Amino acid sequence: MSAESTKEDQGLIEVLRDKLRQFAADRDWDQFHSPKNLAMALSVEAAELLEHFQWLSDADSAAMSAEKRRKIREEVADVFLYLIRLADKLDIDLGSAATDKIKINAAKYPIETAHGSSKKYTDL
Amino acid sequence: MSAESTKEDQGLIEVLRDKLRQFAADRDWDQFHSPKNLAMALSVEAAELLEHFQWLSDADSAAMSAEKRRKIREEVADVFLYLIRLADKLDIDLGSAATDKIKINAAKYPIETAHGSSKKYTDL
Amino acid sequence: MSAESTKEDQGLIEVLRDKLRQFAADRDWDQFHSPKNLAMALSVEAAELLEHFQWLSDADSAAMSAEKRRKIREEVADVFLYLIRLADKLDIDLGSAATDKIKINAAKYPIETAHGSSKKYTDL
Amino acid sequence: MSAESTKEDQGLIEVLRDKLRQFAADRDWDQFHSPKNLAMALSVEAAELLEHFQWLSDADSAAMSAEKRRKIREEVADVFLYLIRLADKLDIDLGSAATDKIKINAAKYPIETAHGSSKKYTDL
Repeated sequence: MSAESTKEDQGLIEVLRDKLRQFAADRDWDQFHSPKNLAMALSVEAAELLEHFQWLSDADSAAMSAEKRRKIREEVADVFLYLIRLADKLDIDLGSAATDKIKINAAKYPIETAHGSSKKYTDL
Repeated sequence: MSAESTKEDQGLIEVLRDKLRQFAADRDWDQFHSPKNLAMALSVEAAELLEHFQWLSDADSAAMSAEKRRKIREEVADVFLYLIRLADKLDIDLGSAATDKIKINAAKYPIETAHGSSKKYTDL
Repeated sequence: MSAESTKEDQGLIEVLRDKLRQFAADRDWDQFHSPKNLAMALSVEAAELLEHFQWLSDADSAAMSAEKRRKIREEVADVFLYLIRLADKLDIDLGSAATDKIKINAAKYPIETAHGSSKKYTDL
Repeated sequence: MSAESTKEDQGLIEVLRDKLRQFAADRDWDQFHSPKNLAMALSVEAAELLEHFQWLSDADSAAMSAEKRRKIREEVADVFLYLIRLADKLDIDLGSAATDKIKINAAKYPIETAHGSSKKYTDL
């Protein structure tokens, strides 16, 4: 585990992970929570989040009503919760996985070649 | 901010958020990172994660090769990173949003009626 | 079956449906083609299509290179093929389902109230 | 255009395409129907379809209530309609694109090596 991802840092995700374990246990939902099903649920929640933006201009998407922002906040939370639950079932440490991936991305997208470009790394 | 979501707890997400801000600034990518575009990218990454599970039985999805697990870990990280970036652009605190949403879900899915059922709350 | 959806009209979809049946039978793939798995594959293909547009401005999305257009055409085809396959497994006639849905949408979005608005029907 | 995709065969898709053009024109919706936005809408509809299957076993997904089947039929129709609309905006002939893609897939997945396997062609 890297310096950026100490035990103290991960308190939040661990707390949420434990709440979700209890939530599922209380409702006997572990039978439904295969990694496959959780990956589906995560993808569905990501699309529900996307739906809020689908007809907006980029400018509109940065300026929304309080009610719309409240709904979006809930969808963002749903994505996060399913991600934590899936990572738990797959024994993935979200913090170290994300820290590692930033390094991989930095190698894929060197500052010099990627600057100002939205091209995929395979096209740079 | 709730007791579960103290400043110390959020260290990890804040560290990742700051790394992503720097990553985008270094590459002049803020011009592409509208909430709409980030919500699309999040949805695309969630589908790339889902692709790893699409033909598997639920049993298979819990038992995969080390190489497959490594790829899945990277996709999980991608979803997390775009989620942190989107939440940053929308000024959403992931920890408190998730903590609030668990409470909402607990009200939608009371233990008595939801026990052992995969029905949506609107059908319970 | 409506006047718009005669047997002759559906020739194309029926031909494609039969090719896909043969394709799966030749490879012994029916074991994987549950409606659930096909719905996942459809969603994954839709996201692969979406990926081509994710960082583009709306203007850019209407003006793309021949190579990019070729790839997008293939992704569009993949979505269509999985949709035909899923509809076949679910005994859904795509033509009459689509014709019926246009009528439902016309009732949800009356010309007077929906004109020039991108609001969801529940918000009109 | 191949023998399988004659003008007569495409009657259904052309009829639906024209209805959708009229639908958008009547509501002044062309301003929202960039390929990018339509690709988002298609992806969102595919996820709404997927949601109906997300907690089901593969066996369950083949045996559903009439009400659930009705809703699924509507989601299938929505995917088809957005696909037709997107293809129209991109000048893609769905019939010939699909016919071509089946040939590409047949080359990617030769019967001998793909038989009984759900592996991606890159792993065969």
